[in-house]
Amino acid sequence: MNLYLLGVTGSIGQQTLDILRKQQNKFNLISVSAYKNIELLKSILEEFSPKYATVHLKEDKETLEKRYPSIEFGYGQQGLIKAATYGEKTGLLINAVVGSAGLKPTIEAIKKKRNIALANKETLVIGGEIIMPLVKKHQVSLIPIDSEHSAIMQCLNGEDKSQLKQIIITASGGSFRDLSRKDLKDVTLKDALNHPNWSMGSKITIDSATMMNKGFEVIEAHHLFNVPYKKIKTILHKESIVHSLVEFKDTSIIAHLGNPDMRVPINYALFYPNRTAFNSDSLSLEKVSSLHFEALDETRYPLLSLAKEVGQAGGLLPTVLNASNEAAVQLFLNETISFLQIEDIVIQCINKFKTTNHVTLENIIALDEEVKQFVYDLYT
Amino acid sequence: MNLYLLGVTGSIGQQTLDILRKQQNKFNLISVSAYKNIELLKSILEEFSPKYATVHLKEDKETLEKRYPSIEFGYGQQGLIKAATYGEKTGLLINAVVGSAGLKPTIEAIKKKRNIALANKETLVIGGEIIMPLVKKHQVSLIPIDSEHSAIMQCLNGEDKSQLKQIIITASGGSFRDLSRKDLKDVTLKDALNHPNWSMGSKITIDSATMMNKGFEVIEAHHLFNVPYKKIKTILHKESIVHSLVEFKDTSIIAHLGNPDMRVPINYALFYPNRTAFNSDSLSLEKVSSLHFEALDETRYPLLSLAKEVGQAGGLLPTVLNASNEAAVQLFLNETISFLQIEDIVIQCINKFKTTNHVTLENIIALDEEVKQFVYDLYT
Repeated sequence: MNLYLLGVTGSIGQQTLDILRKQQNKFNLISVSAYKNIELLKSILEEFSPKYATVHLKEDKETLEKRYPSIEFGYGQQGLIKAATYGEKTGLLINAVVGSAGLKPTIEAIKKKRNIALANKETLVIGGEIIMPLVKKHQVSLIPIDSEHSAIMQCLNGEDKSQLKQIIITASGGSFRDLSRKDLKDVTLKDALNHPNWSMGSKITIDSATMMNKGFEVIEAHHLFNVPYKKIKTILHKESIVHSLVEFKDTSIIAHLGNPDMRVPINYALFYPNRTAFNSDSLSLEKVSSLHFEALDETRYPLLSLAKEVGQAGGLLPTVLNASNEAAVQLFLNETISFLQIEDIVIQCINKFKTTNHVTLENIIALDEEVKQFVYDLYT
Repeated sequence: MNLYLLGVTGSIGQQTLDILRKQQNKFNLISVSAYKNIELLKSILEEFSPKYATVHLKEDKETLEKRYPSIEFGYGQQGLIKAATYGEKTGLLINAVVGSAGLKPTIEAIKKKRNIALANKETLVIGGEIIMPLVKKHQVSLIPIDSEHSAIMQCLNGEDKSQLKQIIITASGGSFRDLSRKDLKDVTLKDALNHPNWSMGSKITIDSATMMNKGFEVIEAHHLFNVPYKKIKTILHKESIVHSLVEFKDTSIIAHLGNPDMRVPINYALFYPNRTAFNSDSLSLEKVSSLHFEALDETRYPLLSLAKEVGQAGGLLPTVLNASNEAAVQLFLNETISFLQIEDIVIQCINKFKTTNHVTLENIIALDEEVKQFVYDLYT
C-alpha cells in the first residue's frame, strides 16, 4: 500500500517507521514531511527513499535538494499539502503533524480518495464539521491513531451503533494528576513533560497535563463516531490499561485493554479493516494486578469542562479553543509563561472571540491565525 | 418468536421469565419444563399458558393434567425431549436444565433447526464433540447463557477469528476463595452456597466453590469458539465485573464488563444477533473503583487443572468428569459427604473409568449412568 506520512520525525512518525521496518514488503513510503529536525529526516530519506519530502523552512528545502537530487522537495504549508496528495494513486495518509497545520492536507487527501490515519487531533477538533461530510462523500476510511479512539472503534466492531448508550473515554490524569490546583502554581516545564504512562511528543504531553487533550478527545469522539456530547463520558484511570469503553443499551460494556504502546493503534490503522499480528508482549493482568477508576473532578481540570461546552457550541468556537491552546502551550514550552497561564489564556480567548461566522476552511484558517497572533502579542 | 424453556423454575428460568414479562409481545412461550417445584410451575402455567409442560415425576404430571386440562403434560426424560421439540415451528430452545439430562433435548431441538440458548453446561462439556458438528450441519445458532461465554461471544463480534491469540476467562474464586486448602476441611453446605457475587442455583454455586465450574467453562469455550486448550487461560478476578476477555495477535484485548446480572446474557441470547435495551443500572466504574486480577493457583483448585487435562484428552473422559462431579455435588448437597470429598470422588472416577469407546450419545448416556451409580454406591 502507498503511504504518505506527515510528521515523520515526531513520536508517531518514528513509531510508524518502526512498524514499516518489519513490514517492508507491504508498504511503499511515497512522501514524508518533517518540521525542523533535518538530521533525522536525512537518515529517513536514506533508509526509505521516498519520492517526495517536505520541511518547514525554505532554506532547509534548498540544502536537502542539493544533497538528494533524486528526491523532490517542498516546504511550508504548500509542501505539506503536496506530501498529502503526492502522485495519482490512492493509499493511506498518516497525518501525525502537530497543530492546525494538519487540517488542510487531510482535506486535500480525502478529496483524492485516500484513506486517513489520523494522529493530528486538530483536524477533527477544529475541522470536524467539514471533514466528516467529506469522508462520507468520498467514501474513505478515517481511522484514529490515538489509543482512546482506536479503542472505541474496536469496541464498536460488528455492533449496531443505534444500540450505543455511551462512550467512556479514560484519562490517565497527566503529569500532575497527584497535585492539587494550589500545587500547580510552581510546576516547571520539565515536570510537565514527564508523563506517567505514555511516551509522546511535548505538545500532547502538556495537553495531557492540562486535560485539554481529553477535552479534544471528547470533541474528536463526537465527530468520529457521530455521538452527541451527552453520551460521551470521561473517567480517570491512572494505569492507562483500559484505553476506553463503550456501553450498549443492554448495559453490556465492551472495553479495549492493552499495554500503553502507541504502536498498537498505529498498527491497527495501517492494516485496517484487518488486524495484523504485532510482535510485542501481551498485557499481563496478573502483573498489573489492579485497575483503578475515579470520577474526573472538572473543577480540578477546567479546560476539560470548557472543551465539552465549546464542542457542544460547535461552529468556530473549537477553532478558538485549539488556537489559543496551541499558542499558549508554545509559550509554555518556550518558558515564557507558567503552567496555569495556559488555562488563563484559553479562557480569555474563548470569552473574547465570539464569532458566528460559518464553518469554512477559510474562516477556520483566518480565525486560527488571528487567535494565535492575539496570544503571541500578549507576551512580546 | 417461539420459546421452549427447559428449567423454568430454576434461577435462569425465572430470570428469563422476568425479561419475557417486559417483552411479552415479542415471544410466545410454547413449552416449559420443571423438576419438582410444582407450586411455582403452577403459577407459571397460569401466567404464561404454555401449550406443553413437563415435570420430573409421573405423579406430578397426573395431578397437573387434571387441574389444567387445556395444557398437554409430560414427565421424565421423554417429557424434556418433547418440550424441546414441541410443535412444528422453529424458534429458540432455552436449555436451563441442570446436569446431563440437558444433552439429548438439545440434540433433538437442533435437529428441528431450533436455535439454542444454552445455560446447561453439560451439553457442551460432555456432548461438545457431537453438538458442534450438528450445529454446523443444521445451521442453527448456539448462544451461551453464561456471563463468561456471552462475554467472549460479544468480544468476538465483527472480528476475524484467525487473529485470536487467546481467550481469558475470569473466575470470581467462588465461596471459599479466601480460604486455604487447610481451611476447606470443615466448611459447611451453608457456607458453600454463599457465593460472593452471583445469585445462582445450588449446583453451579458448589461448582464455583470447587472451581469445577471454571473447568467446565474452559471445555465449553473450547467447543463453542473452536479454540485449542492452550489458547484458553483462566484468571482470578474477584469483583466479577470483567466477565471475560479476548486477546488478538496485535496484543489488543477486548473485554466485556458489567454488573453481575444473569439477565444481561439471557437478554443477549433472547435477541441475538441483535442487542436490545435492558432496563437496568449501568455499571459505575467510579463506584466499583478498582478491579483486581491474580493468577489462579491450580494447586489450590485441583479440579480446574484436572478439567483442562480431561478436556484436552477429550472423548468420553469429560463424561466421567461431569458425571462423577454431578453425583458428588448431589451427595454434598444432601450433606452425605464433606466439601473436599467432592474432589476426591471426581479424581477417583477419572482414574477408574478409562474408556476408549467412541463418543456417541448412547455411550455418553450409558457411561454417565454408570459413573453416577458408582459414586452413589460408595455412600449407600
